[in-house]
Order: sequence, then structure tokens, then C-alpha cells
Amino acid sequence: MTTNTTSFVATAAAAARPTRAELVRSLVEGERRFHQLPKDLAPEEAADIRRSALEEMTRTPLNNIAHHSLDVTRASRRNCENFIGVAQVPMGICGPLRVRGNYVDGDVYVPLATTEAALVASTNRGCTAIREAGGAVVRVEDVGMTRAPVFRTSGIVQTQAFLRWIQDHYEDVRRVTEATSRYIKLLEVRPFAFGTTVFLRFRFDSGDAMGMNMATIACDRVVTDLIEPATGVACIGLSGNYCVDKKPAAINFQEGRGKRIYAEILIEAPVLHHNLRTNARDLVEVQYRKNLLGSIAAGSLGFNAHYANVLAAFFIATGQDPAHVVEGSLGVTCIEARGQDSVFASIFMPDVPLGTVGGGTALDTQREALAMLGVSPDPVRRGEATLRLAEILGAIVLAGELSLMAAFTSQDLARAHEKLGRAEPAGPQPLPA
Amino acid sequence: MTTNTTSFVATAAAAARPTRAELVRSLVEGERRFHQLPKDLAPEEAADIRRSALEEMTRTPLNNIAHHSLDVTRASRRNCENFIGVAQVPMGICGPLRVRGNYVDGDVYVPLATTEAALVASTNRGCTAIREAGGAVVRVEDVGMTRAPVFRTSGIVQTQAFLRWIQDHYEDVRRVTEATSRYIKLLEVRPFAFGTTVFLRFRFDSGDAMGMNMATIACDRVVTDLIEPATGVACIGLSGNYCVDKKPAAINFQEGRGKRIYAEILIEAPVLHHNLRTNARDLVEVQYRKNLLGSIAAGSLGFNAHYANVLAAFFIATGQDPAHVVEGSLGVTCIEARGQDSVFASIFMPDVPLGTVGGGTALDTQREALAMLGVSPDPVRRGEATLRLAEILGAIVLAGELSLMAAFTSQDLARAHEKLGRAEPAGPQPLPA
Amino acid sequence: MTTNTTSFVATAAAAARPTRAELVRSLVEGERRFHQLPKDLAPEEAADIRRSALEEMTRTPLNNIAHHSLDVTRASRRNCENFIGVAQVPMGICGPLRVRGNYVDGDVYVPLATTEAALVASTNRGCTAIREAGGAVVRVEDVGMTRAPVFRTSGIVQTQAFLRWIQDHYEDVRRVTEATSRYIKLLEVRPFAFGTTVFLRFRFDSGDAMGMNMATIACDRVVTDLIEPATGVACIGLSGNYCVDKKPAAINFQEGRGKRIYAEILIEAPVLHHNLRTNARDLVEVQYRKNLLGSIAAGSLGFNAHYANVLAAFFIATGQDPAHVVEGSLGVTCIEARGQDSVFASIFMPDVPLGTVGGGTALDTQREALAMLGVSPDPVRRGEATLRLAEILGAIVLAGELSLMAAFTSQDLARAHEKLGRAEPAGPQPLPA
Amino acid sequence: MTTNTTSFVATAAAAARPTRAELVRSLVEGERRFHQLPKDLAPEEAADIRRSALEEMTRTPLNNIAHHSLDVTRASRRNCENFIGVAQVPMGICGPLRVRGNYVDGDVYVPLATTEAALVASTNRGCTAIREAGGAVVRVEDVGMTRAPVFRTSGIVQTQAFLRWIQDHYEDVRRVTEATSRYIKLLEVRPFAFGTTVFLRFRFDSGDAMGMNMATIACDRVVTDLIEPATGVACIGLSGNYCVDKKPAAINFQEGRGKRIYAEILIEAPVLHHNLRTNARDLVEVQYRKNLLGSIAAGSLGFNAHYANVLAAFFIATGQDPAHVVEGSLGVTCIEARGQDSVFASIFMPDVPLGTVGGGTALDTQREALAMLGVSPDPVRRGEATLRLAEILGAIVLAGELSLMAAFTSQDLARAHEKLGRAEPAGPQPLPA
Repeated sequence: MTTNTTSFVATAAAAARPTRAELVRSLVEGERRFHQLPKDLAPEEAADIRRSALEEMTRTPLNNIAHHSLDVTRASRRNCENFIGVAQVPMGICGPLRVRGNYVDGDVYVPLATTEAALVASTNRGCTAIREAGGAVVRVEDVGMTRAPVFRTSGIVQTQAFLRWIQDHYEDVRRVTEATSRYIKLLEVRPFAFGTTVFLRFRFDSGDAMGMNMATIACDRVVTDLIEPATGVACIGLSGNYCVDKKPAAINFQEGRGKRIYAEILIEAPVLHHNLRTNARDLVEVQYRKNLLGSIAAGSLGFNAHYANVLAAFFIATGQDPAHVVEGSLGVTCIEARGQDSVFASIFMPDVPLGTVGGGTALDTQREALAMLGVSPDPVRRGEATLRLAEILGAIVLAGELSLMAAFTSQDLARAHEKLGRAEPAGPQPLPA
Repeated sequence: MTTNTTSFVATAAAAARPTRAELVRSLVEGERRFHQLPKDLAPEEAADIRRSALEEMTRTPLNNIAHHSLDVTRASRRNCENFIGVAQVPMGICGPLRVRGNYVDGDVYVPLATTEAALVASTNRGCTAIREAGGAVVRVEDVGMTRAPVFRTSGIVQTQAFLRWIQDHYEDVRRVTEATSRYIKLLEVRPFAFGTTVFLRFRFDSGDAMGMNMATIACDRVVTDLIEPATGVACIGLSGNYCVDKKPAAINFQEGRGKRIYAEILIEAPVLHHNLRTNARDLVEVQYRKNLLGSIAAGSLGFNAHYANVLAAFFIATGQDPAHVVEGSLGVTCIEARGQDSVFASIFMPDVPLGTVGGGTALDTQREALAMLGVSPDPVRRGEATLRLAEILGAIVLAGELSLMAAFTSQDLARAHEKLGRAEPAGPQPLPA
Repeated sequence: MTTNTTSFVATAAAAARPTRAELVRSLVEGERRFHQLPKDLAPEEAADIRRSALEEMTRTPLNNIAHHSLDVTRASRRNCENFIGVAQVPMGICGPLRVRGNYVDGDVYVPLATTEAALVASTNRGCTAIREAGGAVVRVEDVGMTRAPVFRTSGIVQTQAFLRWIQDHYEDVRRVTEATSRYIKLLEVRPFAFGTTVFLRFRFDSGDAMGMNMATIACDRVVTDLIEPATGVACIGLSGNYCVDKKPAAINFQEGRGKRIYAEILIEAPVLHHNLRTNARDLVEVQYRKNLLGSIAAGSLGFNAHYANVLAAFFIATGQDPAHVVEGSLGVTCIEARGQDSVFASIFMPDVPLGTVGGGTALDTQREALAMLGVSPDPVRRGEATLRLAEILGAIVLAGELSLMAAFTSQDLARAHEKLGRAEPAGPQPLPA
Repeated sequence: MTTNTTSFVATAAAAARPTRAELVRSLVEGERRFHQLPKDLAPEEAADIRRSALEEMTRTPLNNIAHHSLDVTRASRRNCENFIGVAQVPMGICGPLRVRGNYVDGDVYVPLATTEAALVASTNRGCTAIREAGGAVVRVEDVGMTRAPVFRTSGIVQTQAFLRWIQDHYEDVRRVTEATSRYIKLLEVRPFAFGTTVFLRFRFDSGDAMGMNMATIACDRVVTDLIEPATGVACIGLSGNYCVDKKPAAINFQEGRGKRIYAEILIEAPVLHHNLRTNARDLVEVQYRKNLLGSIAAGSLGFNAHYANVLAAFFIATGQDPAHVVEGSLGVTCIEARGQDSVFASIFMPDVPLGTVGGGTALDTQREALAMLGVSPDPVRRGEATLRLAEILGAIVLAGELSLMAAFTSQDLARAHEKLGRAEPAGPQPLPA
């Protein structure tokens, strides 16, 4: 009798294929770690096994985490390793929000995923005010995504030579980076250097993608294949924090990152009084003492009331990276008196990474949220889906600012919290923290 | 026969209780807004009606958003108005993570909710390194939650009188604020003033709650009932941005807010080499050029690699306010060479608002995540559940830093993205952006 | 014949006392350095020899540098080693400036030493406006001088023990620091720590002295004699930049340093029109777009027009440390509309180190400038001379702000420069850069 | 007999040309202000009259202020109105300082004007170390001088049109600005805008002049003659604080202003030990905990030990604007370990306004100081004199850093102050605060 080794092994493997119970036990006893389940296990099954082990180890039923409708194969591969299920974040709807931009000119309904009582209701009130006032004018500049590798030189003489080399070979640098993806275009390489350290801040147009991964891959390629071999200058890290990703920073305020968003509106007395229950004088004073003087006093990079609240809810609903809320919290709200008891209100967000492909945007609930907003990437109209999303974001952030700022003037902020945060039904003008 | 118009209308209304279809139609046609559904409608039904209207208006099926297991009554009242369903955020598991703190001394499994490929895998690698190195030493200081109303005076003379009044009546101020909740204790009133503007930054111990709402309510009460009447000085806004909530700011870096978290570990050569695939020299150099010099170059308030990434995933999983990631992104990572090819690594997070009651912590999936972490608020041990959560957070952020910093030294960051972000199965040491 | 080596050398030295010409030659030829002239040389002679050598080496006559009336013995010992003469800085006079403070209530004449055309004329115009408007209300808080040694610990556990020790031994710390000078009182020790680093920011009342040297000496003593021996924690540097001296920094803006100065005034239409050639509306708009929005846009810590200009001129005239202008440049100017075409203007300087004894205050011209201001330290009224100086400083900085801000509204800034910077006689309302 | 009052007065005035005593009396009695002396009075006489009046009013002899050798005609017209004399600032000499730059390659002697004991001695010690180590490598980038007028628009739509206009008419803008002076060249117009506010940051090459006045004049011309008429957009102020002049700011750190200076040196063990009395390990640790971590902790824009001290002394000696010390205080010192107990030390100053013509550079003592440094502007070699000055400045600041940082390691800082600040003779290695 002869036997074929390979098939024997296969047979043995089949024979030794651990059962579900065995796999759970091996996790519980620490013989395996959560990422060490057999590769050929169906993702749903792997998730189930991990949950069972966790339930046993932590004595916690995970029925709700298990309850979802995601495509597990996709989510566990593209979004989240050691997948066990989902966090369900409540989603509410605002609108119609009237947006007067270049990529959307009309009404949209905006889903916000949040756990903070009063946020949706308050933002919705802002939408009403904007609608009554004729719509928010919005413009977006596509700054591009950045990544800044950091290099070590021997000092200023080599640094200057290195930067001259980059300048002289800009075309080569562009070519190599752009070869990594047909979606990426190099816009700029901005250097910053001192001592023996050089940062090259690459800025890319990444179309409809947020672009962080593309930018990292492009930088890796050009550093590894071109810059290091040609110059002999060592790259110490592909991200040298001069990018700067997910940290608040002056460079991003100055130079922008992702999308730079402007939204504004003139609101006249009737809307101020009826919809926002405020008046121009009070609104301008809160703006002055809170958004300007208060942020100055605090040494803040955010001169606004609560961009981050609306952003976070919008980001989670639409599959953006919620850590980018850090960057989106930067910016300046202005509210200026106009004519007879009117105000001109504007928001300015210099640093909003945003995408409509990749990341969390393909997840099932997030995809639905994007679809609701009429956002669907189209290779023929490269980048436009994300610009549309950015315009809507600008308008909804403006709605949030208007409503909260108005709330401060009527001092019902705390009362709103008292009422809404403690389980009564949502009234018509509740207000967030 | 006579009839009373009012009662006729009432009767008619009762008679004409609109049907589901009519309510959907009225939303679609804009006769009603989303918050104007009948108050007595069951929350699930209201959500369903809103979804049907949205599906029609936006031509988008919302089946996945509809798919959840939340207690809609609670979620729609306490977390999210105009409720339509949920965003499902993939959750993965890290650990065991060995934590050596005052409130947890042992191993925990940490759920992270994220859409960013490689984050869970990379953080999990950090957990392994920490475990192999004996566990992360963590300490937490409970700074307290802050809220800073802003006042208008006539100038420096009145300002000084006003601040003297506050100082002289501190005991009254304390009493009135603490009367608003048995969970709140006043710790400090820190003034800042110039021109005709005064900020009073109230700092409260809020026990296991994150405390923002409590602090707002307490400030409202003491301002309305005590300070304004007694001093005649007008409060212009209950939040004057000297708090400062959800904006990056020097005051929070200096004074702290929420929890101030320290975590650290000594890692010797074997763990550096085998688990993190790096070495002390390279790790120290990336730390120097990226976390220190790079953040200096960028004018950043965050001297770290990616606190925000781990924070955001931890916050969403455990029901924290994701907009607070803005504050949590502040802080300083240190990695220092020790002895023979070892490093001492530490993280410092001065500003982490955190709670285990209220907000999103009662939602069903989030509650399971907290339970998995062994976190359960107990009135007898006031505040300790949240301190436990903070210690775990410190350790998991340290895990994230270690793994990403190590990844930079082996320059496989981009390659990891290339592999993981593009749908191949997750390998053993993938790395996040 | 016998001889004693020592006495021979002594005799030879006496015999060989180098002549002036020999000393000059030895400097020129590099045999001696400038600090190596014989110790017993009269300071004037040493200065003369250095000048002669420099004149020869650099072929530059130094007649003007040589021309001064300083007490060379004092200046060369207490202010400036390797003394060769003086820089003559033109001094002009402003005023009368009407100050309504706690330490000066009346008119003063303010000397400014500057090389910048139009600064004195413009500030003088501000003085006129202030006088006509009834005088500037000024208040000063004596924050105290700070110094922050930096320590190295083994990590958070030792850090917490170390800080507890400091807290428990605060009385000892106070006693040891205060033993170094009868002029110094310890006000606070503010810790800041992360990783293995601890900063202790000592804050001292230093009476009429600016206090930097006193604070350094006191810190050295308490670190060397008490803290290091008792705790075993090593001090790495007596100044750890958390002080922070002569660098712009958030901590000083927040906590103050030296004197914290407030000055303000209500200016009505006639003075705005006749003296400042402006009007309320324009002034308020420049304030808004320049001092608030412009500084926000620039990422500045100074929300003012030109504190530093007036400060530098005042500091040089009165013997302050001109490097402290860095700190004095921080702060916020406010200009708010009032009633019928009036404005309320204020300045706020959180960080102004200032002294009336020590440093340059004893130099002959600076002493005269202080005397002109009626400033004379008196041990019986400890600290009051410097508080008087601070009040005058506040008022003169306000004068400078008012005049320059008004100039912007009439857009004659550039024309003033064109006229004054190019050698025409000073007209009545010239304006600085 | 009739008479015409007016003509009588006129006649009387002519007849009664007031005497010196009458003019003094009129000042003392407040009938005239200091700027109201007859225009035809000789400047020396006017100064004398002002002094006499001040002496009487303030009962202060001003003999030392009167003692100077300045050309009063020039100083009172070009530098300082209401001239009364000078502040004498002690000047000491450092060097030889070995500079290895592009505009100076050799030894120079550097005059420093200071009142701070130990500064000259300490900096001189740094010069010795640099000389022994072979000289400081210095490079300077001529960033140019900036001025940023601020404009008001009706919102984002007009703002975008306005900026497009500027872009489309850049050549016209350049032509008009450059027509104001043959010394000026426009390098860039950098816009920043939000709400209804637009800043245009003009950047000019101003040759050997510091350039602030030139830039202001050029901006005034182009705004008045071209931009406002063509666009209808109003300029609200010629300086909108986005320049940003004499305030510490992120924009200047990022973009640079004036000269951007780099200086560096490798120092080996013998020089560290003998000249600086330190060693590599200690120096690197102080650098780490003070200049990096301490400045991070403080929220500072200056990551150095004391650039401002050396700058202020150099600026006063050479006739620079001392208020610009604010900007020069920004920057990063690095000290890195090399090989066997050696260090590589560097300074980086992104923002140093500097000139060798105009301002205080023509004053008699300052002119001598510049001559000593071999600095003499030459139209044929436009800008080179100032570049030479900048290189020397870079090297002397490096000297100051090295010496003070070394002092911290030997902890003799306080002792040096104790000895030197209290009137004992200057020893060989005293150290500044």
C-alpha cells in the first residue's frame, strides 16, 4: 500500500481539524490568541468562536454585539481584525438641510450617529433656521491628503543638498508616487528642517478616497525606491508627525488638510426670533466672549462652539475615520451683526479628512447613510462625491453652531440637558452640551 | 343645534388619528418634520415611519440601519432624537492586556470598535508585548469635569470685586452647585479675566459619570440662583470655551480635564526583537524625530503617534462621547533607552473625559463591552468603575503606541496597509496608519 | 648664591607688570583673551585696553562706544563683563500720562528709549487721548517670579511619591528657599510630570526685584540641600523650561509671571475724533479683524497691536531685561463699542517681569529714568515701587495701542513711515510700524 | 486807534521769539507739550529745553541721560521724537568667535549690549568652545520681510473672486509694490481667509534693510492704488496681524520671517570637558528634559535655553529693533550624542528680522559695533552685509546656548548668579540666568 504524503497530511488535517468547542476552549485557556484561529474558518464562525470564548472568560453575554447585518467577510478583512460583532450607535435624522454649494444645490436629509442626547434635535433646529433663511452657502477646497516622512542628515550642509536634490528631481518623485495608484496625484512636497532632521510633507490629491493609506503607500515607494538610494539619506519613519495625522496642530490650521470647508448664511430677525429664539445682539455677544475671547483665554486651536460634536456624529454615520474628529475640531466660527437685527454667520474648517470610498464607507449601514445623502463615487467625476459630502458637512456643522450658540443666549442649555438627558421625550428645541 | 368649534376639532382629531401611511406621506411631502410625529407613537413605530419616508424621499433602502437590537425607547429618548436605527461599527477584540493599576491588576480583553484596517491587529500586537514584558503600570488622577460660564463686567474694578465675591462666597457656591445632584462635588473655581470678560472654570468631581451634563446643570443653577442675583454681573453663556470642551487647548493640557492618565513599561531586548520586531536604538530614534521633533515642527499639542486612533475605537465600543477624542489626542509619549538594548516607554494623557454611567454607556452593545472589561459602577465605590476604565484605556493606548512606533522602525507600515487595506486576510502583525 | 623660586617669581611678576601697550598687544596677538586682563587693573583702564585692541584688530574707531558716563566699576562687575563702553539708545519723552492706579494716581512723564521712528510721537498721541479722556484705570497683580527645576524619576510610582514628599514638606521647602534672601517669599510649587520627568515650578514674591536671580539661587539651595538628599531624586537642571523664562508659552499666559497688568479707558467721540482722528466704528472693526481674527489666523499668543514696541522702549529706558519683552508681548487688547460713538479699550498683559532694584536699574541713565517716574524702592513699602512702575507701564502700553490702532483706521500708517522714517522733522501725529 | 488782535499776536510772536527760559516754563506749566517746541529750534537745544523742564517737573537731574555723543539732528528725526538724550547700555566684547558661513569664514569679535550679569562672560566661554572645536557652521535663508493687510468681503463667494483677482494680477501687484523702492522685490502673496475676512501676507526681499517700513509702504501703495480701486474690496488695516510683527506666532515659525538661521557644531570630549566643564551624557540629558520636554510641558514656541538673551544684547549693540527679540526667541536647539562622548549641537531660528541700513543702524555707537563686525552694506553686493550679520548672530546664539546648557549640567548656574549678580569681580566662567 502506498500513500501520498500530501493527501495524508490533508487527511490528518481534516481528521485533526479542531471542533468549534475545541477552538473556544483553546482561546479560553490561552493556548491560542484571538488572531490564531485557523485561516480557513469562515469569518462568521471565527467571530462566533471568539464571542463564545469571551462570554466564558468574562462571564458576559454578548448577544447584542452579535446582532448585526454586516458582511462579516468584508468587515473582518478590510475594517477590523479579531472581529466579534458591532457597536450599535443610534442614528437620528436631521433636515431637510438646504445646501447651496457647487456640488449640491438643494435639500438633503442628514443622518447623525450619536449617543449624546439633544444633539440631533438641536442640529435639526439649526437646519430649520438655515432652510428658512434660504440655505447655507458652502464652498470646499480640496487641499489633499498629506504624509510626511522624516529623514536624518549629517547637518545643514547635507540638508540643503538633500532639499536641492528633491527640488531638482520633483518630476521623478511625482512619477514614482503616482505609479502606486491611478487615483493619486502629487500636489506638493513641503520641506521643514532643522538640526539633523528633515521632514518632507507630501500632499496628494486622492480623488474620492480619504487618502491616508494611498499617501502612505506612495511615500513608502518613493522613499524606498528613489530617495534613499539616490541620496543616501536615511528615512527614520514614514510618518514624522509633520503630516500631521489625528493630532491638533498649527501646520494643519495653516496649510489645511483633506478638505477646507467654508459655510455661511445671513439670518434675519424673524428666523432669529422664531426659529432660534434669540436675537442678533445676544448672539453676537456670545460669539465674541465665547468663540473668540474664550478660546483665546484657553489657548485653543478651535474658535467654535462644537464642530466636534456634529462631526463625530456625521463621521460615524457615514463611515469616516472618527479619530479625524481631532483635526475637524479646528476652525473659526464668525457671527457678525448686519443691518436691523440680522446676523451673518460662518464656519471655517481648515482640516477635514473625508472620503466616499475605502475605510468604513463600504460597511452596510454607512453605505446606506451615504446613499441617503446622494453621495455615490463615479470615476468619471473623480472626487466630486467627496466634495458633495464635504459641502453637506459644512452646512450641517453650521446648523449645529447656530443652534447651540442661540441656545446659550436663551440660557436654556442646562435646562435642555436636565430635560433631555434624563429620559423625557425630546421636545422641539432641545440643546446639546 | 349648536356646536363648539374646539370640541369639534378635538373630536375630529381623535377620529382622524393618522394612519402609518398618512404619517409617512406627510413626512415625504414636508407637511410634518421628523420631530413632529405624534408624541404617543411607539418609538419603534416612529423610527419605522421615518425610515419609510426617508426611503421614499432618498430612494435608498435602509434595511441595515433598521437592523439592530437597541432598546428604542431608551435610545430615542436618552441618546438620539429623530431615531431611525443605528450605525453598525465593527468590533474586534484585543488582549489579554496585562494592566498593573490601582483599580485593575490583571488581564483584560479590550473591545475596539473601528473601521480602520490593521488597528486591532496592531494594538493586539502591543498587548502581547506588554504582557510579555510583565504588564503596563498605570496610574490615573481624577481631575474632574469642568464648565466655564462667561460673564460681562464693566471693567477691571468690577471684575476684581466680582472675583473677591466668588472667593468670599465659595462655600455658598459649593453648596448650591452640589445641591443639583448627589453625585457632584465642587473641587475648584478657577477664574480668568481681562477687559470686561470673566471666565469661571468650575471643576467638579462627578463620580462615575463623565459629568459634562451634571456640570452644566450645576453651573446653570449657581449662576441663575446665586451669582447673578447677588452680584448683578450678567452671565453671557454657560460655556465660555474656557472649559474647554471638545476643542484642543493649552488650558486642558496644563490643568487636565476628566482623567489624567499615565501608563508605562520597561521592555527588554527579547520582547523588542521577537514581539515588536524592532530594537531599542531605532525605537528611540523614531520617538525623537517623530513624536518630539515632528510634533514641535508641526506646532502640535499632541506629542504621540496615534492616541486618537485607539481612543476613538475604545470610546465607540464603550459608549463614551467620540467628540472627546479631540481632547484625548493631547499628550506626550516618551521612549527612553535603558541598559542593554531595552527601552522605557510611557504615555501621558492629560485630558480624557470618561464615564461608566450616562451617555452612551447604557446602550445595549456598549453595556456588553463595559461588562467584558469588568466595569460596573457601584455607588459604594463611587468613581472606581470609571477609574478602572481609565486604567485599561491607558494600557491599551500604550499598546497602540508601542506597536505603531515599532512598525515605523521596520518600515512595514505602508506594506501593512497595502496588504490589509486591500482585502487580503489579516496577517499576524498588520499595522495601522 | 641661593634663590627662592617663589619669591623670584613674585619679584619677576612685580618687575614684569605689563604696560598698557603690552596688554593691548597681547590681546591683539591672541596671547590673552579679553577676560584675561590682570584682575587688579582699574575697570576703566581694562575697558580702554580692550577698546584699543579691538580698534587695531577690527580697524574701527570706537570713540562713541567709549563716550559714556557710567560708573564702570559697577557696570563691569554687576552688568557686563569684558566691558568696552556703551550702546547709546536715543531716549524720548511722552506725556503727561494720566494714570489712575493704586500706586500712582496722577500725571507722569514716561521716557522711552528707542531707535524706531514714530514710536515716541505715536505713543505721545495716545497719552494725550488718555489724558483728555480722564486717565487710564490700571490694576496690577503681583504674580511673582518663577523658576522650575527639572528632575528625573524612575517612573510614575516614584513621581507620585516625590510629589507627595514635596507636598508633605512644603513648610521645609518654604523655609529653605526663604533663607536664601530676606526679600523672597515662596508662594507656590506647581508640579507637572510625565514619563520620568518632573518639573517643580517655584513661584516667589521677590518684592521690588525682578527676582529671576533670587529665584534661581533659592531653587538651587532647596534642591541641593533638601530635595535631592531627602528624596534621592536627581535634579537635571535648575531651569527646566517650565518656568518659562524668555520664551513665549501657554503656561505663562495661563498662570502669569512677574506682574499681570490690566489697563483700560472709556473714550468718547470728541477724543476719538480730535485726538485720535478716528471713530468708534472703524476702531472696533480693526480691533476685530486684526487683534482678534488676525492673531487667530496667525496662531499667535499675542492678541494685540504692538505691546512689544512700547515695552522694549520702556524696558531699555528703565533698566529692565530687554529679553523679557518676549514675555511681555503676550496678551489681549479689547476695544468695544459703547453708547454713541464711544469705545471701551483695554489691555491685558499676563506676563511682565519687572524690577526696580538689581539688574540694569542701578545704571546711571536708567536710574534717572526711574527717578523721573517717581519710582524709588523703599524697604518699608516692599514691592510698591515696582507696582508703581507696572501701573505706569500698563498705561503707556495702552497709549501705544490706542494710537496705533487709530492710525490703522485712518490708513496713514505707511504715509507716517514714509515721512518720518526718511528724515523729515517729526510732525504732530506720526505713527509707528 | 484801532488794532487787529490777530496781526498783533503774530507780530508779537515774531518779536517775542520765546527765550529758552520761557520755553522751559511753558513746558513745565503745560502750556506746550514736548512736541510743540518751535520747529526751527536746533535739535540739541530742543532736547536741552525738554530736559530742563523735566528736571524741574520731576525734580530729577538728568545729567547722565544728557551725556552722549549722538548726532542729535539725525537721532531726533530718524529714530526718536521728543528727544531728551540716551539710555546708556553697557557693552562687552566676546570672541574671537569662529564662523564658517557663506558670508563670513573666520574670526570675529562680537559686541553685546546688556545689563545682565554673566551673559557676556558665559557667551564668551561658548565662543572659546566653538573656536576650539573648529568653528560654527552657519547657513542663512533670506525669507524676506512680511506685511499682511486685512480686507473685508461679503463672504466666501467674494473672497474667492478676490483671491482669483490677486492671482490673475500678480504681475501688476508686483510692479506696483516694487515701484515704491528700488530696494524691494515681491516674493509671494500668501492668502488666508475665513468668514468675511481676507489676509494677504506680502513677502518681500528688502536687501540689506530689515524691511518693515518698506513693506508697509509698498503694501499701502498697492492696496490704495491698485487693489481697492480694482476690486472694490475694502482694506481694514495695513497690518492684519497675519504678518505677524513682534508677536510670537505659529505662522512665523512655519513660514519664517526675516532671516532663517541655522548654526551647528560637533564638539568632542576634550572641549566638552576643558572648555565647557561638562560631558556628552549630561548635556544630552539636559537638552532632552529642558529644551524638549520642558518646552513641551510649558506649551512654548521656543525650544531652546535662551536665544532671547543673546539676541537682545546683539540687537541693542547693532541697532536692530529690540522688539523683534520676540520673534527671535522662537526656534529649536538640538544636542545629540555622537561617538565617544561627543555631541552635535545645533540651533534653528526661523524668524529673525535683521538689517544693516535704516532703523538704529546709523546711530553712532551702533555703527561702530557693526563696523567691528566687518559689516558694511554695499549696493553692489545687495543683501550680503545683512546675511553676514545673520551668520554671526547664528554663531553667537549657538555659543550662548552651549555655555548655558553646559552650566546647567554642572549646576553652577545659581552659584554663578550668587557670585556675579552681587558685585564680586567677574570670574572666568560665570553663567547667566
